[in-house]
Amino acid sequence: MSLAALRGRVVALHAFQMLCPGCVQHGLPQAQRIHAAFEPNDVAVVGLHTVFEHHEAMPPVSLRAFLHEYRIAFPVGVDAPGTQGTVPQTMQAYGLRGTPSLLLIDRAGRLRRHSFGAEEDMAVGAAIAMLVAER
Amino acid sequence: MSLAALRGRVVALHAFQMLCPGCVQHGLPQAQRIHAAFEPNDVAVVGLHTVFEHHEAMPPVSLRAFLHEYRIAFPVGVDAPGTQGTVPQTMQAYGLRGTPSLLLIDRAGRLRRHSFGAEEDMAVGAAIAMLVAER
Amino acid sequence: MSLAALRGRVVALHAFQMLCPGCVQHGLPQAQRIHAAFEPNDVAVVGLHTVFEHHEAMPPVSLRAFLHEYRIAFPVGVDAPGTQGTVPQTMQAYGLRGTPSLLLIDRAGRLRRHSFGAEEDMAVGAAIAMLVAER
Amino acid sequence: MSLAALRGRVVALHAFQMLCPGCVQHGLPQAQRIHAAFEPNDVAVVGLHTVFEHHEAMPPVSLRAFLHEYRIAFPVGVDAPGTQGTVPQTMQAYGLRGTPSLLLIDRAGRLRRHSFGAEEDMAVGAAIAMLVAER
Repeated sequence: MSLAALRGRVVALHAFQMLCPGCVQHGLPQAQRIHAAFEPNDVAVVGLHTVFEHHEAMPPVSLRAFLHEYRIAFPVGVDAPGTQGTVPQTMQAYGLRGTPSLLLIDRAGRLRRHSFGAEEDMAVGAAIAMLVAER
Repeated sequence: MSLAALRGRVVALHAFQMLCPGCVQHGLPQAQRIHAAFEPNDVAVVGLHTVFEHHEAMPPVSLRAFLHEYRIAFPVGVDAPGTQGTVPQTMQAYGLRGTPSLLLIDRAGRLRRHSFGAEEDMAVGAAIAMLVAER
Repeated sequence: MSLAALRGRVVALHAFQMLCPGCVQHGLPQAQRIHAAFEPNDVAVVGLHTVFEHHEAMPPVSLRAFLHEYRIAFPVGVDAPGTQGTVPQTMQAYGLRGTPSLLLIDRAGRLRRHSFGAEEDMAVGAAIAMLVAER
Repeated sequence: MSLAALRGRVVALHAFQMLCPGCVQHGLPQAQRIHAAFEPNDVAVVGLHTVFEHHEAMPPVSLRAFLHEYRIAFPVGVDAPGTQGTVPQTMQAYGLRGTPSLLLIDRAGRLRRHSFGAEEDMAVGAAIAMLVAER
């Protein structure tokens, strides 16, 4: 999957770690509600596993079991290890401050909103819809 | 207050009864979140006390204390008693099925969405934002 | 109903006001969980409507509709108006600080625990059971 | 740690898997509330990691990071792999049906309550206190 291939749709990219309590309790359930509330033709929900701590505790085999057990229904990519330090590449490229983070990318592929931590569904739903309404 | 005076803004009209558990637990807190999430220039939140049962239990003096104790920050109107039967006039005019009900009226004054019972914030926030985006 | 008639059982007395948000959101649901978790032969749950503000907003007809709508399954008494000031008699006699308050009375009729505000179910369940275990 | 060494105290043994959603959302927070509500001299809370599926996804290094991130304050043991099949030894010895499971052991070391799935705090707090009251 590439972001380029999603051009034309709004992308809600949820960066998380499987052992981050705020991601498990808030971020991932919210991403699933985004996935349920919008039309797939309008909004693509994508998870990104951005491990920046406890790397050895969250290998691919653990992530796979986690995604299965939590019934994550949208595609999830794995951020590539950083070339220097512990922060993976996409996380560094986007300047993410931690997990959970939510990035909203518009139909033209531009990053339009970037939030870190818990946000209310009302505001997130509104922000995504405003991007959907842009043609 | 008249709906005509709100023309140009999206109106989120929340119909409730002060002794309806679903209104107190879900509907009114959601209306307050709508009120907090959107700009007042874009969205007007209005409450409507549509009493259709236990009329004598919810007089104006009780409603005033209720609105004070629950810190309701948006204006609340009282539906006029029905001319026949127990259902008040606005409730009958809009064909509301009960409480809580949420009506969304667009900038031009047209009723665009009508829901009864609990709805998720994600969908409500999105629906309101889609109307806000219409010019 | 008199407390004397409940001698031999532990009494969980929940003092509330029908327009007190903390009572509706926390105290009364907790009292209902006490009522569901313990044997009626061991624990009597009793509500007490101790109105100390907005007196005219919470008359008996409103309380009756409230108890019906919220499906309160345990008996509820109404505290008698105070002879001086706005605080009702039982509230004054027990020195209650406000609502919600929970009083635990042991099998011998002695007041053993008195709490004001929200308490966790785990601690409340344990405190009641410790009194049940006393013979 | 051995159960024998805990003789004289009530033991609340919480069996869980780190990738079991019901454990993370309900069971472990409840075990932490037990730990906070009772005196350590009266009640010992013990976790037991009983992995019976996705074994390779939950190695010790992952469990350690999980316990750190979720701030688990009570001791956690790891159930020994089963000699036949996928079910570990203690899980098999106690006949546990899955995770989360809560076992209550009295001061004399006898298993007195065994529950599987979500239970309300009120009932759990009461059951533990009844055992605490036994001398």
